[in-house]
Amino acid sequence: MIKYKNFGIVGGDMRQIFLSESIAKDENSVKIFANSSTASNQENFTDKLENAIKTSDYVILPLPVTYDGETLNAPFSKSQIKLYDLMRELTDKTVFCGGINSLSPLIPENTNIKLKDYYAREEFQILNALATAEGAINIALSEFLGTIHSSRCLIVGYGRIGKVLSKILKDMGANVTVSARKPSDLAWIEVMGYESINTNNMPQKLDYDLIFNTVPFKIFNRENLLKCSYETKIIDLSSKPGGVDFELAEFLGIKAIHALGLPGKFSPIKAGDIIKRTIYNMIEEERL
Amino acid sequence: MIKYKNFGIVGGDMRQIFLSESIAKDENSVKIFANSSTASNQENFTDKLENAIKTSDYVILPLPVTYDGETLNAPFSKSQIKLYDLMRELTDKTVFCGGINSLSPLIPENTNIKLKDYYAREEFQILNALATAEGAINIALSEFLGTIHSSRCLIVGYGRIGKVLSKILKDMGANVTVSARKPSDLAWIEVMGYESINTNNMPQKLDYDLIFNTVPFKIFNRENLLKCSYETKIIDLSSKPGGVDFELAEFLGIKAIHALGLPGKFSPIKAGDIIKRTIYNMIEEERL
Amino acid sequence: MIKYKNFGIVGGDMRQIFLSESIAKDENSVKIFANSSTASNQENFTDKLENAIKTSDYVILPLPVTYDGETLNAPFSKSQIKLYDLMRELTDKTVFCGGINSLSPLIPENTNIKLKDYYAREEFQILNALATAEGAINIALSEFLGTIHSSRCLIVGYGRIGKVLSKILKDMGANVTVSARKPSDLAWIEVMGYESINTNNMPQKLDYDLIFNTVPFKIFNRENLLKCSYETKIIDLSSKPGGVDFELAEFLGIKAIHALGLPGKFSPIKAGDIIKRTIYNMIEEERL
Amino acid sequence: MIKYKNFGIVGGDMRQIFLSESIAKDENSVKIFANSSTASNQENFTDKLENAIKTSDYVILPLPVTYDGETLNAPFSKSQIKLYDLMRELTDKTVFCGGINSLSPLIPENTNIKLKDYYAREEFQILNALATAEGAINIALSEFLGTIHSSRCLIVGYGRIGKVLSKILKDMGANVTVSARKPSDLAWIEVMGYESINTNNMPQKLDYDLIFNTVPFKIFNRENLLKCSYETKIIDLSSKPGGVDFELAEFLGIKAIHALGLPGKFSPIKAGDIIKRTIYNMIEEERL
Repeated sequence: MIKYKNFGIVGGDMRQIFLSESIAKDENSVKIFANSSTASNQENFTDKLENAIKTSDYVILPLPVTYDGETLNAPFSKSQIKLYDLMRELTDKTVFCGGINSLSPLIPENTNIKLKDYYAREEFQILNALATAEGAINIALSEFLGTIHSSRCLIVGYGRIGKVLSKILKDMGANVTVSARKPSDLAWIEVMGYESINTNNMPQKLDYDLIFNTVPFKIFNRENLLKCSYETKIIDLSSKPGGVDFELAEFLGIKAIHALGLPGKFSPIKAGDIIKRTIYNMIEEERL
Repeated sequence: MIKYKNFGIVGGDMRQIFLSESIAKDENSVKIFANSSTASNQENFTDKLENAIKTSDYVILPLPVTYDGETLNAPFSKSQIKLYDLMRELTDKTVFCGGINSLSPLIPENTNIKLKDYYAREEFQILNALATAEGAINIALSEFLGTIHSSRCLIVGYGRIGKVLSKILKDMGANVTVSARKPSDLAWIEVMGYESINTNNMPQKLDYDLIFNTVPFKIFNRENLLKCSYETKIIDLSSKPGGVDFELAEFLGIKAIHALGLPGKFSPIKAGDIIKRTIYNMIEEERL
Repeated sequence: MIKYKNFGIVGGDMRQIFLSESIAKDENSVKIFANSSTASNQENFTDKLENAIKTSDYVILPLPVTYDGETLNAPFSKSQIKLYDLMRELTDKTVFCGGINSLSPLIPENTNIKLKDYYAREEFQILNALATAEGAINIALSEFLGTIHSSRCLIVGYGRIGKVLSKILKDMGANVTVSARKPSDLAWIEVMGYESINTNNMPQKLDYDLIFNTVPFKIFNRENLLKCSYETKIIDLSSKPGGVDFELAEFLGIKAIHALGLPGKFSPIKAGDIIKRTIYNMIEEERL
Repeated sequence: MIKYKNFGIVGGDMRQIFLSESIAKDENSVKIFANSSTASNQENFTDKLENAIKTSDYVILPLPVTYDGETLNAPFSKSQIKLYDLMRELTDKTVFCGGINSLSPLIPENTNIKLKDYYAREEFQILNALATAEGAINIALSEFLGTIHSSRCLIVGYGRIGKVLSKILKDMGANVTVSARKPSDLAWIEVMGYESINTNNMPQKLDYDLIFNTVPFKIFNRENLLKCSYETKIIDLSSKPGGVDFELAEFLGIKAIHALGLPGKFSPIKAGDIIKRTIYNMIEEERL
């Protein structure tokens, strides 16, 4: 655990609010900028960027850092913050960010900004997969008019999210089929007690109540959508642009939901906690 | 499975629509009255009670049969149906109903109505408990801003719903405590790997993220509500009037939700299936 | 927990040794008679019955109290102890025993012996079922040359042992079928995700790798044994005389094992612990 | 599945007998040499190496191929088979073997032997880990005098065996701690609901009923053995020379068991099945 440090938390949503509360509870000092000021974070809140940054040991930027590539992701902020300007203020700071691609090119010359991407960390991705899986269960419970128990579920992809999600569904009593390609994945799927099919060679009928896609390729193209029943619900958990031809799905009467950012939407306390713990790990490794 | 019979289905909601579809698929004839007529049930729908009843071998009434004690539970019906009048039409019929107390006194003299309560059947209650538990998970996932995984959950009561719900929560990774009283229940709770507390003698602190009450007594009175944290969410699954002093809870800032009729709300397909299978069991036992 | 009491423990096997150690750890005084004296129990061991009984608040007799109906079950004792004689020494004592039928008729007149049967307690039976189920898994792992995972298992009977055993087998990845009769049992079997068959009406083929019988009736008579494959292993957990025609099974080349007293054989520490806790419960209830 | 091929199976133990039966059932032709001839494999058995090899499309050697580096692992064979000689007979053949290091240097010049190592395949290792884990459970159930349920278990290492074993133990109700080092492993351990400790920095007390080691380094050296209770049972599943200072353990009164080759010992049917399926995969990939 990290203690007695100063953190500046800039931008973001509810996750950053819970993140800041959690960091503060560990006897750190926290300043929040460009987020919502509430009764409970009043004393940690500042309306000047400088106050959040100047004395901080670490600065934390949100996940994702930006949606448009130019301004900080800060939905609760009254004013827009240009990434270009922000980077000019962060001279010499250690800055944790969620995704690094938009920021790296903006590091000013002759500065010593240490950009560190918590989103790229394996443990972040694993714990986030758990929160994503619970969000997917939430959607499934709301969308499907039967019970998960004894339903027929297909999970496409056996990465982190696929692993967690298939376990929850099976524990809830669903008939779980997982689609994968590698013999080693297929062996694990067997060990865990799921049925398996090959993603490269889907069977003629995809007769499932619920399909959860986790693969960021257009798996549910014309060929595979035509194999589904119109009663199938597809919950696509893969990042934009997703793995479903949504227009065709709608035309066919198949409900397909592109479910993005579930940890932030359904589990912001946990999402904040995961960011905190990943950053703590990164700081501790630095020290060794 | 029951086949080649005529069923009249009177009143009810989406469950009865799915129930009627499911019965029809088993090669029975079905007539629906006092429910919604949709594209898919058009041919089985009738707007005359007589058509639904006259040639039917079995009549199915909804669950619950009535909310007010006087009229049939038929939210999609255009007109009200008096129980008193209805009973006069059911002469000589075998009638399955969900709850029998309001109907029994209304059986007319000199008739031979055989009233049979599917709600009172043990297997109905067990399967319904499963659907209720999934509904409770749905609410918990929506209300709690963390993840079920690693949350602290208390289930009060170890009857059917308590048994199913605690298993799902533990399988999802929650820290599960169950409150019960009988030594035999406490032994089962231990075998299943949950912590236990005694309902008669709750500890001084009820420091849980989520509390699920299944006991139809006012467990969460002043004494026990004061033991909860204001961050606790209470999901009360017990039948009316419930086990929580809701006014006091609100005053204390504790969110308490009285969650009733979950199978019908979240899992009408399954709820209809459970009614069907229970009625089939009852018919088959009759035959033996 | 019970403290500061004197216990006399008479007869029994390793379970009683572990039982006495566990009771002593709770700050009670213990005297052991008619069991094995070892290095570790030397100071609590006595070779005179009188020493074990005279100052004791509670006397504990083994499970079962007797095998032959006349002498105490005391395999490690050098001399035989007649139940008739023993009862004459227990005047005015509270005596806990495992099974009461052989002792009740022997209570002498004009005494005040309070005989209490821990074996008849529901919580004892439940916790003991757990130890029995683990013993059954041990035997299955040793007998079956495949893995439990993906094996085909039949559990006959859905009482306490059936409930625990089927859960362990399913969690280990077996394909689990449970045989029962009551609609409510069949509903629970479905909720738990097992296949079910009807004990009264077994299918034509009992094509299982492992069959666990828990029902104390001759289920595996000629008719049902002929349905088994000669590769099936039958593990009969029901009390004497068991539920299998063992002679016929042997003739047919089907390996059938009558597995009795598993908690004492495989888990004597736990078996002792279960006796202790049940007796503590009984003492505490007495006090209320 | 592979069909209509000729397989020569040379050397090995019960696993190879079951392997040959299983291959034959798939409508392949099988010849067994240098193993036990039994009533059931009489017609496939040959006592001349040439018969097993000459017409075969594929030759299968055992796992491990050799224990001494010179002769084939063939415990049921009447005569010893020198690897050097064997390799001279296998000209032009596709040969599947369990471990390749002893054989590669022996490939004669001017031949076209295609040596393929099924033991090196990821899916083989995963499925074998499952059989190993069940063997470990078998040993634990026999060695530990309590129940797995509510026992305190430590699994050292979170590779394939660690993953399967910890899941079975937890499902059986044990209190499971896993020792690992990588943040990503620690994250998975948390997701699966186990406690974690750091292998590099074990706590001062290793107060467990059962310790399962899967790491092939001397983890249980003087320092760590002294942290164990003398009641701890250590089951070492790591390959020779194992991860325990066995002499010191014995001196300290700690029972440590080096459990090797569990799939072959306890689950030869499954072990044979895993070899078959891995080889089938390898043949099918070749064809693509």
